[in-house]
Amino acid sequence: MIVSGKHYLTLWWENGAVHMIDQNKLPFIFDVMVCRTWEETAEAIRNMNVRGAGAIGAAAGFAMAQAFLQASSINKDEYLLAARAAIEATRPTARDLFFATQRVSACSNTEEAIREAQGIAAENSEEGRLIGIFGEPLIKDGMGILTHCNAGWIAFVDHGSALSPIYEAKRKNKDFTVFVDETRPRCQGARLTAWELGNENVRHHIIADNAAAYMMQHRKIQLVIVGTDRVAANGDIANKIGTLEKAILADYFGVPFYVAAPLSTFDLSMTSGNEIPIEFRSPDEVLSISGLNKQGEIENIKIAAPGSQALNPAFDVTPATLITGLITSKGIIKPNKKEISKLFH
Amino acid sequence: MIVSGKHYLTLWWENGAVHMIDQNKLPFIFDVMVCRTWEETAEAIRNMNVRGAGAIGAAAGFAMAQAFLQASSINKDEYLLAARAAIEATRPTARDLFFATQRVSACSNTEEAIREAQGIAAENSEEGRLIGIFGEPLIKDGMGILTHCNAGWIAFVDHGSALSPIYEAKRKNKDFTVFVDETRPRCQGARLTAWELGNENVRHHIIADNAAAYMMQHRKIQLVIVGTDRVAANGDIANKIGTLEKAILADYFGVPFYVAAPLSTFDLSMTSGNEIPIEFRSPDEVLSISGLNKQGEIENIKIAAPGSQALNPAFDVTPATLITGLITSKGIIKPNKKEISKLFH
Repeated sequence: MIVSGKHYLTLWWENGAVHMIDQNKLPFIFDVMVCRTWEETAEAIRNMNVRGAGAIGAAAGFAMAQAFLQASSINKDEYLLAARAAIEATRPTARDLFFATQRVSACSNTEEAIREAQGIAAENSEEGRLIGIFGEPLIKDGMGILTHCNAGWIAFVDHGSALSPIYEAKRKNKDFTVFVDETRPRCQGARLTAWELGNENVRHHIIADNAAAYMMQHRKIQLVIVGTDRVAANGDIANKIGTLEKAILADYFGVPFYVAAPLSTFDLSMTSGNEIPIEFRSPDEVLSISGLNKQGEIENIKIAAPGSQALNPAFDVTPATLITGLITSKGIIKPNKKEISKLFH
Repeated sequence: MIVSGKHYLTLWWENGAVHMIDQNKLPFIFDVMVCRTWEETAEAIRNMNVRGAGAIGAAAGFAMAQAFLQASSINKDEYLLAARAAIEATRPTARDLFFATQRVSACSNTEEAIREAQGIAAENSEEGRLIGIFGEPLIKDGMGILTHCNAGWIAFVDHGSALSPIYEAKRKNKDFTVFVDETRPRCQGARLTAWELGNENVRHHIIADNAAAYMMQHRKIQLVIVGTDRVAANGDIANKIGTLEKAILADYFGVPFYVAAPLSTFDLSMTSGNEIPIEFRSPDEVLSISGLNKQGEIENIKIAAPGSQALNPAFDVTPATLITGLITSKGIIKPNKKEISKLFH
């Protein structure tokens, strides 16, 4: 995707180092950080310098390949096992992470591991492109489209999942408006989705997460598209906290609710969403916030009553009953066991 | 209510000046600001130094009394009419504001106007006390209670509406937990409700607005109590943006949803909630945020993509069909035309 006129990927492999756009500095500062060891890459995943289902997966694959590079021949297997466990402990909810570590771990040598990690990144980008092509016909002229969090190109290697149909519709000159949930506590909507849409000249309005029902009640929204971090075998999905709320609102107001789901997010070992582990993150993400101060520096300020504590679940599970369809790289399917199992045969 | 061991009202009249706790500085700095003219008091309402349905009403009544003090005998009627129009233009949604300006405007002299304004403030406090007594039996040991925005004592002259039953239950030593929606964009939950509950030693957790459905899905919430800025004749209510979302979630999960409604918030001239005017506030409230920086100063930082715009409806309308009951100073009633009209006969 284009940033100030130049084509970028969200992250890439270069001579054993992982290069990534630092998402903690966006949208205020555009900076590429370089992780030279698997430990640095894992820390970048945990610290959300790289985030978003697909980008986490690609980063985890690269980290695993770095572990192959760093392993000595003496205790290689133990070293790789320990590295894999540490990488997998960074973010427990995203399926892509485990999908990538598993595939790269299975390689028999370093060269093969690097090729596999690069293959995962390339597939990830291609899946986003196909999701855009299959999802685009859902978007009609005059529509208002709600999206939550960021499942754009910056959440993948390129293209994105939920935003890919939007970019495809824009390329076809369709006329529509995107409503961007700011997505507290980390504001990936206001920071990243709005930044992407601005760069791509897509008309959009940021709204407080609280305002989505108002917009639906006033018939401003005709379609919801969100991403997902993990899809269970029955079609339940885990995604950024607040996705469940938007799904319930869409159901109440009769607005179609679609989930863009790369094949790497499906986890058929989980029979329902109840089994998906939900990451709780630091209360500080709710109690304080970072942004740009008047001096043009990124600053963190406290925004809650001193002494009060917060609970901060990072994801929630939306049941299949609230989902109109899953937009996959093989087409749009119903969120049920039969259609999902057909995807993999 | 008690702040650091001393009893305070949210605002009070003293020698022609309106004294008010400056809510834009809470919870970080406790400061009493003094408005010596109706223009200053009106500006404090618009700027939300004083906010919350009941506190806005009391402030508007005091502002109107200040206009009586400032009016010269020559063109008194025109002066009062102009002052009233300016005061009423500060916040269009809150019924209490119009209730107060109307009552004080109808007075025939300054002395009577001051007495009337003080009477409105005293009634406001007493209504909160009674709402606490009628609402308290809804709260059972072991419950999780969700509240949105701030309808506590700082939103009234004292006691509060939605939080009054909670304080009453606390005085009866009931054991419960309050979940406090942070309430973007102005974070009245994280800033004011959490501050009040902390001062009153009520166990509470701040959550991102996005996390309410997660908490209901995991059976952490058995009761929702919110306030209201205006109740229509059919029982529809307007309240802080996001209230409609919580009502839809509560309906979906089968959690009782109560609205604490002082008599001054009822507007029988509106047959339904569709007629309630909804205030849109500045996009800057969404695009930036104030809090405490590391130097201990209140600072405003940008938190959204530069160049992106926001839409910022400040209230939404929750239909009566989603409301379990209205907690009034005359008891709990069903939200329908018949029960509401009985309140006023």
